[in-house]
Amino acid sequence: MLLATTDLLIEDVHFRRRWASPADIGWKSLAVNVSDIAAMGGRPRWALIALACPETVRMDEAEAFYTGVRALAAQEDVVVVGGDTSVSPQGWVVNVTLLGEAAHPPILRSTARVGDVVAVTGSLGRSAAGLAVLEAPHAPTGMTADVLADVTTAHLRPRPRTREGQWLAQAGGVTAMMDLSDGLAADLGHICEESRTGARVELRRVPVDASVHAVALALGRDALTWATGGGEDYELLLTCEAGTFDRLADGLAGATGTRLTALGDVVDAADGIRYLDACGEVVPVGKGFEHFVTGRPRG
Amino acid sequence: MLLATTDLLIEDVHFRRRWASPADIGWKSLAVNVSDIAAMGGRPRWALIALACPETVRMDEAEAFYTGVRALAAQEDVVVVGGDTSVSPQGWVVNVTLLGEAAHPPILRSTARVGDVVAVTGSLGRSAAGLAVLEAPHAPTGMTADVLADVTTAHLRPRPRTREGQWLAQAGGVTAMMDLSDGLAADLGHICEESRTGARVELRRVPVDASVHAVALALGRDALTWATGGGEDYELLLTCEAGTFDRLADGLAGATGTRLTALGDVVDAADGIRYLDACGEVVPVGKGFEHFVTGRPRG
Repeated sequence: MLLATTDLLIEDVHFRRRWASPADIGWKSLAVNVSDIAAMGGRPRWALIALACPETVRMDEAEAFYTGVRALAAQEDVVVVGGDTSVSPQGWVVNVTLLGEAAHPPILRSTARVGDVVAVTGSLGRSAAGLAVLEAPHAPTGMTADVLADVTTAHLRPRPRTREGQWLAQAGGVTAMMDLSDGLAADLGHICEESRTGARVELRRVPVDASVHAVALALGRDALTWATGGGEDYELLLTCEAGTFDRLADGLAGATGTRLTALGDVVDAADGIRYLDACGEVVPVGKGFEHFVTGRPRG
Repeated sequence: MLLATTDLLIEDVHFRRRWASPADIGWKSLAVNVSDIAAMGGRPRWALIALACPETVRMDEAEAFYTGVRALAAQEDVVVVGGDTSVSPQGWVVNVTLLGEAAHPPILRSTARVGDVVAVTGSLGRSAAGLAVLEAPHAPTGMTADVLADVTTAHLRPRPRTREGQWLAQAGGVTAMMDLSDGLAADLGHICEESRTGARVELRRVPVDASVHAVALALGRDALTWATGGGEDYELLLTCEAGTFDRLADGLAGATGTRLTALGDVVDAADGIRYLDACGEVVPVGKGFEHFVTGRPRG
Protein backbone atom coordinates (compact mmCIF):
# COMPACT_ATOMS: atom_id res chain seq x y z
CA MET A 1 0.00 0.00 0.00
CA LEU A 2 1.28 3.45 -0.97
CA LEU A 3 1.28 6.18 1.69
CA ALA A 4 1.82 9.90 1.08
CA THR A 5 2.19 12.89 3.36
CA THR A 6 3.10 16.54 2.87
CA ASP A 7 4.19 19.33 5.22
CA LEU A 8 4.83 23.00 4.67
CA LEU A 9 7.38 24.67 6.96
CA ILE A 10 7.57 28.46 6.97
CA GLU A 11 10.15 30.74 8.54
CA ASP A 12 8.88 32.54 11.65
CA VAL A 13 5.90 30.20 11.82
CA HIS A 14 7.63 26.83 12.17
CA PHE A 15 11.22 27.90 12.78
CA ARG A 16 13.44 30.94 13.18
CA ARG A 17 16.66 31.37 11.25
CA ARG A 18 18.16 32.90 14.39
CA TRP A 19 18.37 29.47 16.01
CA ALA A 20 17.70 26.93 13.25
CA SER A 21 20.59 26.40 10.85
CA PRO A 22 19.82 25.55 7.22
CA ALA A 23 20.87 21.96 7.96
CA ASP A 24 18.52 21.83 10.95
CA ILE A 25 15.68 23.09 8.74
CA GLY A 26 16.44 20.44 6.13
CA TRP A 27 16.58 17.64 8.71
CA LYS A 28 13.36 18.68 10.44
CA SER A 29 11.41 19.24 7.20
CA LEU A 30 11.99 15.62 6.29
CA ALA A 31 11.66 14.37 9.88
CA VAL A 32 8.10 15.64 10.37
CA ASN A 33 7.04 13.77 7.24
CA VAL A 34 8.90 10.60 8.20
CA SER A 35 7.06 10.80 11.52
CA ASP A 36 3.72 10.86 9.69
CA ILE A 37 4.62 7.73 7.73
CA ALA A 38 5.93 6.11 10.93
CA ALA A 39 2.61 6.75 12.65
CA MET A 40 0.92 4.80 9.86
CA GLY A 41 3.32 1.91 10.44
CA GLY A 42 4.86 2.54 7.04
CA ARG A 43 8.32 2.50 5.57
CA PRO A 44 9.39 5.93 4.24
CA ARG A 45 10.74 5.65 0.69
CA TRP A 46 10.75 8.66 -1.68
CA ALA A 47 10.84 12.39 -0.94
CA LEU A 48 10.16 15.50 -3.01
CA ILE A 49 11.74 18.63 -1.58
CA ALA A 50 10.63 22.15 -2.50
CA LEU A 51 12.68 25.08 -1.19
CA ALA A 52 12.08 28.80 -1.62
CA CYS A 53 14.56 31.34 -0.27
CA PRO A 54 14.99 35.10 -0.54
CA GLU A 55 17.31 36.21 -3.34
CA THR A 56 19.94 37.03 -0.74
CA VAL A 57 20.44 33.35 0.15
CA ARG A 58 24.03 32.18 -0.09
CA MET A 59 24.83 29.03 -2.04
CA ASP A 60 26.43 27.41 1.03
CA GLU A 61 23.21 27.96 3.00
CA ALA A 62 21.10 26.24 0.34
CA GLU A 63 23.65 23.41 0.17
CA ALA A 64 23.60 23.04 3.95
CA PHE A 65 19.80 22.67 3.82
CA TYR A 66 20.13 19.71 1.46
CA THR A 67 22.95 18.28 3.60
CA GLY A 68 20.51 18.24 6.52
CA VAL A 69 17.86 16.56 4.38
CA ARG A 70 20.33 13.93 3.20
CA ALA A 71 21.62 13.21 6.71
CA LEU A 72 18.18 12.04 7.84
CA ALA A 73 17.35 10.52 4.46
CA ALA A 74 20.41 8.28 4.75
CA GLN A 75 19.39 7.12 8.24
CA GLU A 76 15.82 6.44 7.13
CA ASP A 77 16.72 4.89 3.77
CA VAL A 78 14.75 7.62 1.96
CA VAL A 79 15.64 8.64 -1.61
CA VAL A 80 15.09 12.25 -2.72
CA VAL A 81 13.51 11.80 -6.14
CA GLY A 82 12.52 15.33 -7.07
CA GLY A 83 11.73 18.82 -5.99
CA ASP A 84 11.41 22.45 -6.86
CA THR A 85 13.29 25.66 -6.06
CA SER A 86 12.00 29.19 -6.13
CA VAL A 87 12.70 32.65 -4.86
CA SER A 88 10.65 33.85 -1.90
CA PRO A 89 9.89 37.52 -1.27
CA GLN A 90 10.31 36.98 2.47
CA GLY A 91 11.77 34.14 4.48
CA TRP A 92 12.45 30.49 3.83
CA VAL A 93 9.63 28.21 2.77
CA VAL A 94 10.03 24.44 2.63
CA ASN A 95 7.61 21.80 1.47
CA VAL A 96 8.40 18.12 1.76
CA THR A 97 6.22 15.38 0.35
CA LEU A 98 7.12 11.88 1.41
CA LEU A 99 5.90 8.64 -0.10
CA GLY A 100 6.03 5.46 1.89
CA GLU A 101 4.96 1.87 1.72
CA ALA A 102 3.06 -0.22 4.22
CA ALA A 103 2.74 -3.98 4.27
CA HIS A 104 -0.64 -3.66 5.98
CA PRO A 105 -3.43 -1.06 5.88
CA PRO A 106 -2.32 1.84 8.10
CA ILE A 107 -3.68 2.18 11.62
CA LEU A 108 -5.96 5.23 11.65
CA ARG A 109 -6.87 7.85 14.25
CA SER A 110 -10.55 7.09 13.99
CA THR A 111 -10.60 3.56 15.36
CA ALA A 112 -10.04 3.92 19.10
CA ARG A 113 -12.62 2.02 21.19
CA VAL A 114 -14.03 2.55 24.66
CA GLY A 115 -11.98 0.53 27.14
CA ASP A 116 -8.72 0.81 25.18
CA VAL A 117 -5.54 1.95 26.89
CA VAL A 118 -4.08 5.34 25.82
CA ALA A 119 -0.30 5.09 25.52
CA VAL A 120 2.67 7.04 24.27
CA THR A 121 6.22 6.17 23.20
CA GLY A 122 9.30 7.79 24.73
CA SER A 123 8.85 10.98 26.73
CA LEU A 124 7.06 14.28 26.22
CA GLY A 125 7.99 17.93 26.52
CA ARG A 126 11.62 17.84 25.37
CA SER A 127 10.85 19.71 22.15
CA ALA A 128 8.91 22.46 23.91
CA ALA A 129 11.67 22.75 26.51
CA GLY A 130 14.17 23.05 23.67
CA LEU A 131 12.10 25.75 21.99
CA ALA A 132 11.95 27.67 25.27
CA VAL A 133 15.75 27.51 25.55
CA LEU A 134 16.20 28.61 21.92
CA GLU A 135 13.75 31.50 22.34
CA ALA A 136 15.14 32.61 25.71
CA PRO A 137 16.97 35.96 25.56
CA HIS A 138 19.88 34.43 27.52
CA ALA A 139 21.02 30.82 27.87
CA PRO A 140 19.54 29.49 31.10
CA THR A 141 22.05 28.86 33.88
CA GLY A 142 22.35 26.12 36.45
CA MET A 143 22.34 23.11 34.13
CA THR A 144 24.88 21.19 32.12
CA ALA A 145 25.55 21.58 28.41
CA ASP A 146 24.28 18.01 28.01
CA VAL A 147 20.85 18.96 29.29
CA LEU A 148 20.66 21.98 26.98
CA ALA A 149 21.82 19.93 24.01
CA ASP A 150 19.30 17.18 24.81
CA VAL A 151 16.30 19.47 24.65
CA THR A 152 17.42 21.76 21.82
CA THR A 153 18.36 18.76 19.69
CA ALA A 154 14.93 17.28 20.38
CA HIS A 155 13.43 20.45 18.94
CA LEU A 156 15.81 21.04 16.02
CA ARG A 157 16.50 17.47 14.93
CA PRO A 158 13.62 15.25 16.05
CA ARG A 159 14.08 11.52 15.52
CA PRO A 160 10.97 9.99 14.01
CA ARG A 161 9.75 6.74 15.55
CA THR A 162 9.95 4.79 12.31
CA ARG A 163 10.96 1.40 13.69
CA GLU A 164 8.55 1.81 16.59
CA GLY A 165 5.65 2.60 14.24
CA GLN A 166 6.40 -0.37 12.03
CA TRP A 167 6.72 -2.71 14.99
CA LEU A 168 3.52 -1.47 16.64
CA ALA A 169 1.51 -1.68 13.42
CA GLN A 170 2.31 -5.34 12.96
CA ALA A 171 2.17 -6.38 16.60
CA GLY A 172 -1.62 -6.63 16.84
CA GLY A 173 -3.74 -4.90 19.46
CA VAL A 174 -3.07 -1.27 18.49
CA THR A 175 -6.45 0.24 17.61
CA ALA A 176 -5.50 3.85 16.71
CA MET A 177 -2.20 5.67 16.25
CA MET A 178 -0.84 9.07 15.27
CA ASP A 179 2.31 11.08 15.80
CA LEU A 180 2.43 13.84 18.38
CA SER A 181 2.99 17.02 16.40
CA ASP A 182 0.46 19.40 17.95
CA GLY A 183 0.84 18.18 21.54
CA LEU A 184 -0.79 15.49 23.64
CA ALA A 185 -3.94 17.49 24.44
CA ALA A 186 -4.60 18.54 20.84
CA ASP A 187 -3.68 15.21 19.29
CA LEU A 188 -5.59 13.08 21.79
CA GLY A 189 -8.47 15.43 20.96
CA HIS A 190 -8.07 14.45 17.30
CA ILE A 191 -8.18 10.74 18.08
CA CYS A 192 -11.22 11.13 20.34
CA GLU A 193 -13.07 13.38 17.90
CA GLU A 194 -12.46 11.08 14.94
CA SER A 195 -13.18 7.94 16.98
CA ARG A 196 -16.22 9.55 18.70
CA THR A 197 -14.90 8.71 22.13
CA GLY A 198 -13.69 10.47 25.23
CA ALA A 199 -10.50 9.77 27.21
CA ARG A 200 -9.21 9.86 30.76
CA VAL A 201 -5.53 10.65 31.29
CA GLU A 202 -3.69 10.49 34.60
CA LEU A 203 -1.20 13.33 34.49
CA ARG A 204 1.17 11.65 36.96
CA ARG A 205 1.75 8.95 34.35
CA VAL A 206 2.85 11.35 31.58
CA PRO A 207 6.53 10.54 30.97
CA VAL A 208 8.69 13.65 31.40
CA ASP A 209 12.48 13.41 31.35
CA ALA A 210 14.69 14.90 34.06
CA SER A 211 16.20 17.27 31.48
CA VAL A 212 12.78 18.81 30.88
CA HIS A 213 12.22 19.30 34.59
CA ALA A 214 15.66 20.91 34.91
CA VAL A 215 15.00 23.37 32.09
CA ALA A 216 11.54 24.19 33.44
CA LEU A 217 13.02 24.93 36.86
CA ALA A 218 15.74 27.16 35.38
CA LEU A 219 13.29 29.13 33.24
CA GLY A 220 10.47 29.29 35.78
CA ARG A 221 8.15 27.34 33.50
CA ASP A 222 5.99 24.23 33.96
CA ALA A 223 7.30 20.93 32.63
CA LEU A 224 3.89 19.27 32.54
CA THR A 225 2.45 22.08 30.43
CA TRP A 226 5.23 21.48 27.91
CA ALA A 227 4.55 17.74 28.00
CA THR A 228 0.81 18.07 27.43
CA GLY A 229 0.58 21.18 25.27
CA GLY A 230 3.98 21.81 23.77
CA GLY A 231 3.84 19.74 20.64
CA GLU A 232 6.50 18.63 18.17
CA ASP A 233 7.71 15.69 20.24
CA TYR A 234 7.03 13.35 17.30
CA GLU A 235 6.43 10.48 19.68
CA LEU A 236 3.65 8.04 18.82
CA LEU A 237 0.31 8.37 20.57
CA LEU A 238 -1.77 5.21 20.39
CA THR A 239 -4.68 3.32 21.80
CA CYS A 240 -4.58 -0.44 22.27
CA GLU A 241 -6.79 -3.20 23.59
CA ALA A 242 -6.39 -3.23 27.37
CA GLY A 243 -5.24 -6.84 27.45
CA THR A 244 -2.44 -6.23 24.97
CA PHE A 245 -0.62 -3.31 26.65
CA ASP A 246 1.92 -5.32 28.62
CA ARG A 247 2.80 -7.45 25.61
CA LEU A 248 3.14 -4.35 23.42
CA ALA A 249 5.29 -2.48 25.95
CA ASP A 250 7.61 -5.44 26.49
CA GLY A 251 7.80 -6.22 22.79
CA LEU A 252 8.50 -2.62 21.78
CA ALA A 253 11.22 -2.26 24.39
CA GLY A 254 12.78 -5.50 23.22
CA ALA A 255 12.62 -4.68 19.51
CA THR A 256 13.56 -0.99 19.62
CA GLY A 257 14.68 -0.04 23.12
CA THR A 258 11.84 2.48 23.32
CA ARG A 259 9.48 2.47 26.28
CA LEU A 260 5.71 2.58 25.93
CA THR A 261 3.81 4.28 28.75
CA ALA A 262 0.11 3.88 29.55
CA LEU A 263 -1.47 7.25 30.33
CA GLY A 264 -5.10 6.31 30.85
CA ASP A 265 -7.98 4.90 28.88
CA VAL A 266 -10.60 5.57 26.26
CA VAL A 267 -14.07 6.34 27.65
CA ASP A 268 -17.49 7.26 26.31
CA ALA A 269 -17.71 10.41 24.24
CA ALA A 270 -20.27 11.72 26.71
CA ASP A 271 -17.59 11.77 29.43
CA GLY A 272 -15.35 14.05 27.36
CA ILE A 273 -11.57 14.21 27.68
CA ARG A 274 -10.46 14.55 31.27
CA TYR A 275 -7.01 15.04 32.75
CA LEU A 276 -6.71 13.92 36.36
CA ASP A 277 -4.13 15.04 38.91
CA ALA A 278 -2.57 12.77 41.54
CA CYS A 279 -5.67 13.16 43.75
CA GLY A 280 -7.97 12.10 40.92
CA GLU A 281 -9.25 15.67 40.48
CA VAL A 282 -9.99 16.91 36.98
CA VAL A 283 -7.59 19.71 36.00
CA PRO A 284 -7.67 21.94 32.91
CA VAL A 285 -5.01 21.21 30.30
CA GLY A 286 -4.35 23.63 27.45
CA LYS A 287 -4.23 22.45 23.90
CA GLY A 288 -1.12 22.77 21.79
CA PHE A 289 -0.71 24.82 18.68
CA GLU A 290 -3.70 25.07 16.39
CA HIS A 291 -3.31 26.74 13.03
CA PHE A 292 -5.33 29.88 12.43
CA VAL A 293 -6.12 30.12 16.14
CA THR A 294 -2.90 31.72 17.31
CA GLY A 295 -0.04 33.27 15.41
CA ARG A 296 2.76 32.33 17.73
CA PRO A 297 5.63 30.32 16.30
CA ARG A 298 4.86 26.66 16.27
CA GLY A 299 8.35 25.36 16.54
CA MET B 1 5.31 3.10 -13.12
CA LEU B 2 4.73 5.74 -10.41
CA LEU B 3 5.48 9.38 -11.30
CA ALA B 4 5.71 12.26 -8.84
CA THR B 5 6.14 16.00 -9.22
CA THR B 6 6.01 18.96 -6.87
CA ASP B 7 5.67 22.72 -7.38
CA LEU B 8 5.79 25.61 -4.97
CA LEU B 9 3.80 28.75 -5.91
CA ILE B 10 4.41 31.91 -3.95
CA GLU B 11 2.48 35.18 -3.96
CA ASP B 12 4.29 38.00 -5.75
CA VAL B 13 6.71 35.51 -7.28
CA HIS B 14 4.32 33.29 -9.23
CA PHE B 15 1.08 35.26 -9.00
CA ARG B 16 -0.38 38.45 -7.63
CA ARG B 17 -3.56 38.51 -5.56
CA ARG B 18 -4.50 41.74 -7.37
CA TRP B 19 -5.34 39.75 -10.52
CA ALA B 20 -5.40 36.08 -9.53
CA SER B 21 -8.48 35.01 -7.57
CA PRO B 22 -8.13 32.27 -4.94
CA ALA B 23 -9.88 29.89 -7.36
CA ASP B 24 -7.41 30.82 -10.13
CA ILE B 25 -4.53 30.12 -7.75
CA GLY B 26 -6.01 26.74 -6.85
CA TRP B 27 -6.55 25.77 -10.48
CA LYS B 28 -3.10 26.84 -11.62
CA SER B 29 -1.28 25.22 -8.68
CA LEU B 30 -2.66 21.88 -9.73
CA ALA B 31 -2.39 22.61 -13.47
CA VAL B 32 1.37 23.16 -13.44
CA ASN B 33 1.82 19.77 -11.79
CA VAL B 34 -0.61 18.03 -14.13
CA SER B 35 1.43 19.51 -16.96
CA ASP B 36 4.59 17.89 -15.58
CA ILE B 37 2.93 14.48 -15.46
CA ALA B 38 1.50 15.08 -18.95
CA ALA B 39 5.00 15.78 -20.29
CA MET B 40 6.06 12.36 -19.01
CA GLY B 41 3.13 10.78 -20.84
CA GLY B 42 1.55 9.85 -17.54
CA ARG B 43 -1.93 9.83 -16.11
CA PRO B 44 -2.32 12.21 -13.14
CA ARG B 45 -3.90 10.43 -10.17
CA TRP B 46 -3.43 11.70 -6.60
CA ALA B 47 -2.69 15.20 -5.30
CA LEU B 48 -1.48 16.57 -1.97
CA ILE B 49 -2.28 20.23 -1.47
CA ALA B 50 -0.49 22.46 1.06
CA LEU B 51 -1.77 26.00 1.56
CA ALA B 52 -0.42 28.73 3.82
CA CYS B 53 -2.22 32.07 4.14
CA PRO B 54 -1.86 35.13 6.35
CA GLU B 55 -4.06 35.10 9.45
CA THR B 56 -6.28 37.70 7.80
CA VAL B 57 -7.51 35.22 5.18
CA ARG B 58 -11.26 34.88 4.99
CA MET B 59 -12.85 31.42 5.05
CA ASP B 60 -14.56 32.01 1.70
CA GLU B 61 -11.18 32.80 0.11
CA ALA B 62 -9.67 29.56 1.37
CA GLU B 63 -12.75 27.66 0.20
CA ALA B 64 -12.55 29.29 -3.23
CA PHE B 65 -8.95 28.09 -3.52
CA TYR B 66 -10.04 24.49 -3.01
CA THR B 67 -12.96 25.02 -5.40
CA GLY B 68 -10.40 25.98 -8.07
CA VAL B 69 -8.32 22.91 -7.27
CA ARG B 70 -11.34 20.65 -7.46
CA ALA B 71 -12.54 22.14 -10.76
CA LEU B 72 -9.37 21.02 -12.54
CA ALA B 73 -9.10 17.83 -10.49
CA ALA B 74 -12.55 16.79 -11.72
CA GLN B 75 -11.56 17.41 -15.34
CA GLU B 76 -8.32 15.49 -14.96
CA ASP B 77 -9.72 12.67 -12.83
CA VAL B 78 -7.35 13.58 -10.00
CA VAL B 79 -8.20 12.77 -6.37
CA VAL B 80 -6.97 15.06 -3.59
CA VAL B 81 -5.72 12.59 -0.98
CA GLY B 82 -4.06 14.83 1.56
CA GLY B 83 -2.50 18.12 2.38
CA ASP B 84 -1.45 20.61 4.98
CA THR B 85 -2.54 24.07 6.08
CA SER B 86 -0.54 26.71 7.87
CA VAL B 87 -0.41 30.39 8.62
CA SER B 88 2.02 32.45 6.59
CA PRO B 89 3.58 35.64 7.92
CA GLN B 90 3.29 37.23 4.46
CA GLY B 91 1.38 36.24 1.36
CA TRP B 92 -0.10 33.03 0.09
CA VAL B 93 2.11 29.97 -0.36
CA VAL B 94 0.90 26.87 -2.17
CA ASN B 95 2.63 23.57 -2.69
CA VAL B 96 1.10 20.83 -4.78
CA THR B 97 2.55 17.37 -5.12
CA LEU B 98 0.99 15.20 -7.77
CA LEU B 99 1.39 11.47 -8.22
CA GLY B 100 0.71 9.88 -11.56
CA GLU B 101 1.00 6.59 -13.33
CA ALA B 102 2.55 5.75 -16.64
CA ALA B 103 2.09 2.59 -18.64
CA HIS B 104 5.56 3.01 -20.14
CA PRO B 105 8.80 4.53 -18.86
CA PRO B 106 8.47 8.33 -19.19
CA ILE B 107 10.09 10.14 -22.09
CA LEU B 108 12.96 12.17 -20.68
CA ARG B 109 14.55 15.50 -21.60
CA SER B 110 17.96 13.95 -21.98
CA THR B 111 17.36 11.71 -24.97
CA ALA B 112 17.11 14.06 -27.98
CA ARG B 113 19.37 13.01 -30.86
CA VAL B 114 21.07 14.92 -33.66
CA GLY B 115 18.78 14.95 -36.69
CA ASP B 116 15.55 14.89 -34.68
CA VAL B 117 12.80 17.40 -35.38
CA VAL B 118 12.03 19.97 -32.66
CA ALA B 119 8.27 20.42 -32.31
CA VAL B 120 5.71 22.04 -30.06
CA THR B 121 2.00 21.52 -29.37
CA GLY B 122 -0.56 24.32 -29.68
CA SER B 123 0.67 27.89 -29.79
CA LEU B 124 3.08 29.99 -27.74
CA GLY B 125 2.97 33.38 -26.08
CA ARG B 126 -0.64 33.47 -24.91
CA SER B 127 0.28 33.20 -21.24
CA ALA B 128 2.88 35.98 -21.46
CA ALA B 129 0.41 38.16 -23.37
CA GLY B 130 -2.14 37.49 -20.65
CA LEU B 131 0.35 38.41 -17.93
CA ALA B 132 1.11 41.66 -19.76
CA VAL B 133 -2.61 42.48 -19.85
CA LEU B 134 -3.03 41.62 -16.16
CA GLU B 135 -0.02 43.70 -15.17
CA ALA B 136 -0.92 46.68 -17.41
CA PRO B 137 -1.99 49.77 -15.44
CA HIS B 138 -5.04 50.14 -17.72
CA ALA B 139 -6.88 47.56 -19.81
CA PRO B 140 -5.52 47.78 -23.35
CA THR B 141 -7.93 49.26 -25.89
CA GLY B 142 -8.65 48.36 -29.50
CA MET B 143 -9.42 44.66 -29.05
CA THR B 144 -12.42 42.57 -28.19
CA ALA B 145 -13.24 41.13 -24.79
CA ASP B 146 -12.77 37.69 -26.35
CA VAL B 147 -9.16 38.41 -27.15
CA LEU B 148 -8.46 39.68 -23.65
CA ALA B 149 -10.22 36.70 -22.09
CA ASP B 150 -8.31 34.29 -24.33
CA VAL B 151 -4.89 35.46 -23.19
CA THR B 152 -5.70 36.14 -19.52
CA THR B 153 -7.39 32.75 -19.19
CA ALA B 154 -4.31 31.15 -20.75
CA HIS B 155 -2.26 32.72 -17.96
CA LEU B 156 -4.64 32.21 -15.03
CA ARG B 157 -6.14 28.82 -15.90
CA PRO B 158 -3.74 26.96 -18.18
CA ARG B 159 -5.01 23.68 -19.62
CA PRO B 160 -2.40 20.98 -19.27
CA ARG B 161 -1.79 18.81 -22.33
CA THR B 162 -2.60 15.54 -20.56
CA ARG B 163 -4.25 13.67 -23.43
CA GLU B 164 -1.63 14.97 -25.83
CA GLY B 165 1.23 13.83 -23.60
CA GLN B 166 -0.25 10.37 -23.17
CA TRP B 167 -0.89 10.01 -26.90
CA LEU B 168 2.60 11.21 -27.86
CA ALA B 169 4.32 8.97 -25.31
CA GLN B 170 2.75 5.83 -26.75
CA ALA B 171 2.89 6.81 -30.44
CA GLY B 172 6.53 5.92 -30.98
CA GLY B 173 9.11 8.26 -32.47
CA VAL B 174 9.18 10.92 -29.72
CA THR B 175 12.74 11.01 -28.37
CA ALA B 176 12.53 13.74 -25.71
CA MET B 177 9.67 15.70 -24.19
CA MET B 178 9.00 18.32 -21.51
CA ASP B 179 6.38 20.94 -20.76
CA LEU B 180 7.02 24.60 -21.53
CA SER B 181 7.03 26.32 -18.17
CA ASP B 182 10.09 28.55 -18.41
CA GLY B 183 9.68 29.49 -22.09
CA LEU B 184 10.86 27.97 -25.35
CA ALA B 185 14.38 29.37 -25.21
CA ALA B 186 15.03 28.26 -21.63
CA ASP B 187 13.34 24.87 -21.95
CA LEU B 188 14.92 24.00 -25.30
CA GLY B 189 18.15 24.91 -23.55
CA HIS B 190 17.35 22.31 -20.89
CA ILE B 191 16.71 19.59 -23.47
CA CYS B 192 19.89 20.43 -25.38
CA GLU B 193 22.02 20.64 -22.25
CA GLU B 194 20.75 17.35 -20.86
CA SER B 195 20.91 15.63 -24.25
CA ARG B 196 24.32 17.18 -25.07
CA THR B 197 23.08 18.55 -28.37
CA GLY B 198 22.46 21.88 -30.06
CA ALA B 199 19.33 22.99 -31.92
CA ARG B 200 18.31 25.17 -34.84
CA VAL B 201 14.92 26.89 -34.67
CA GLU B 202 13.29 28.85 -37.50
CA LEU B 203 11.47 31.68 -35.78
CA ARG B 204 8.95 32.08 -38.63
CA ARG B 205 7.65 28.62 -37.75
CA VAL B 206 6.91 29.41 -34.09
CA PRO B 207 3.11 29.20 -33.76
CA VAL B 208 1.67 32.48 -32.42
CA ASP B 209 -2.08 33.07 -32.26
CA ALA B 210 -3.73 36.18 -33.70
CA SER B 211 -4.87 37.15 -30.18
CA VAL B 212 -1.24 37.37 -29.07
CA HIS B 213 -0.34 39.58 -32.03
CA ALA B 214 -3.34 41.82 -31.27
CA VAL B 215 -2.35 42.25 -27.62
CA ALA B 216 1.28 42.88 -28.55
CA LEU B 217 0.22 45.57 -31.00
CA ALA B 218 -2.06 47.24 -28.44
CA LEU B 219 0.61 47.26 -25.73
CA GLY B 220 3.53 48.10 -28.00
CA ARG B 221 5.24 44.81 -27.17
CA ASP B 222 6.74 42.00 -29.28
CA ALA B 223 4.66 38.85 -29.78
CA LEU B 224 7.64 36.70 -30.76
CA THR B 225 9.50 37.63 -27.59
CA TRP B 226 6.53 36.43 -25.58
CA ALA B 227 6.39 33.23 -27.63
CA THR B 228 10.07 32.40 -27.19
CA GLY B 229 10.82 33.84 -23.75
CA GLY B 230 7.54 34.33 -21.96
CA GLY B 231 7.05 30.94 -20.35
CA GLU B 232 4.06 29.33 -18.65
CA ASP B 233 2.38 28.20 -21.86
CA TYR B 234 2.38 24.61 -20.58
CA GLU B 235 2.49 23.32 -24.14
CA LEU B 236 4.62 20.25 -24.82
CA LEU B 237 8.07 20.72 -26.34
CA LEU B 238 9.40 17.56 -27.94
CA THR B 239 11.93 16.10 -30.27
CA CYS B 240 11.07 13.23 -32.61
CA GLU B 241 12.73 11.13 -35.28
CA ALA B 242 12.55 13.14 -38.49
CA GLY B 243 10.69 10.44 -40.38
CA THR B 244 7.93 10.28 -37.77
CA PHE B 245 6.89 13.94 -37.60
CA ASP B 246 4.08 13.83 -40.18
CA ARG B 247 2.59 10.71 -38.66
CA LEU B 248 2.76 12.22 -35.16
CA ALA B 249 1.23 15.54 -36.25
CA ASP B 250 -1.63 13.86 -38.10
CA GLY B 251 -2.20 11.35 -35.33
CA LEU B 252 -2.17 13.96 -32.56
CA ALA B 253 -4.60 16.19 -34.45
CA GLY B 254 -6.88 13.24 -35.04
CA ALA B 255 -6.75 11.97 -31.46
CA THR B 256 -6.90 15.27 -29.58
CA GLY B 257 -7.58 18.13 -32.03
CA THR B 258 -4.26 19.72 -31.05
CA ARG B 259 -1.79 20.72 -33.72
CA LEU B 260 1.91 19.81 -33.59
CA THR B 261 4.30 22.28 -35.24
CA ALA B 262 7.86 21.58 -36.34
CA LEU B 263 10.17 24.44 -35.33
CA GLY B 264 13.54 23.16 -36.48
CA ASP B 265 15.94 20.36 -35.69
CA VAL B 266 18.45 18.99 -33.26
CA VAL B 267 22.09 19.60 -34.24
CA ASP B 268 25.54 18.93 -32.83
CA ALA B 269 26.28 20.45 -29.46
CA ALA B 270 29.22 22.25 -31.06
CA ASP B 271 26.79 24.27 -33.18
CA GLY B 272 24.96 25.57 -30.12
CA ILE B 273 21.34 26.66 -30.08
CA ARG B 274 20.55 29.05 -32.93
CA TYR B 275 17.38 30.96 -33.74
CA LEU B 276 17.08 31.96 -37.40
CA ASP B 277 14.98 34.77 -38.84
CA ALA B 278 13.10 34.57 -42.17
CA CYS B 279 16.37 35.34 -44.02
CA GLY B 280 18.22 32.52 -42.31
CA GLU B 281 20.20 34.96 -40.17
CA VAL B 282 20.96 34.05 -36.56
CA VAL B 283 19.16 36.40 -34.15
CA PRO B 284 19.50 36.63 -30.37
CA VAL B 285 16.59 35.24 -28.35
CA GLY B 286 16.29 35.92 -24.64
CA LYS B 287 15.69 33.14 -22.19
CA GLY B 288 12.59 33.01 -20.07
CA PHE B 289 12.43 33.20 -16.34
CA GLU B 290 15.26 31.64 -14.43
CA HIS B 291 15.02 31.37 -10.67
CA PHE B 292 17.61 33.26 -8.63
CA VAL B 293 18.62 35.24 -11.73
CA THR B 294 15.87 37.83 -11.67
CA GLY B 295 13.29 38.70 -9.06
CA ARG B 296 10.49 39.69 -11.39
CA PRO B 297 7.20 37.84 -11.06
CA ARG B 298 7.20 34.63 -12.98
CA GLY B 299 3.50 34.32 -13.51
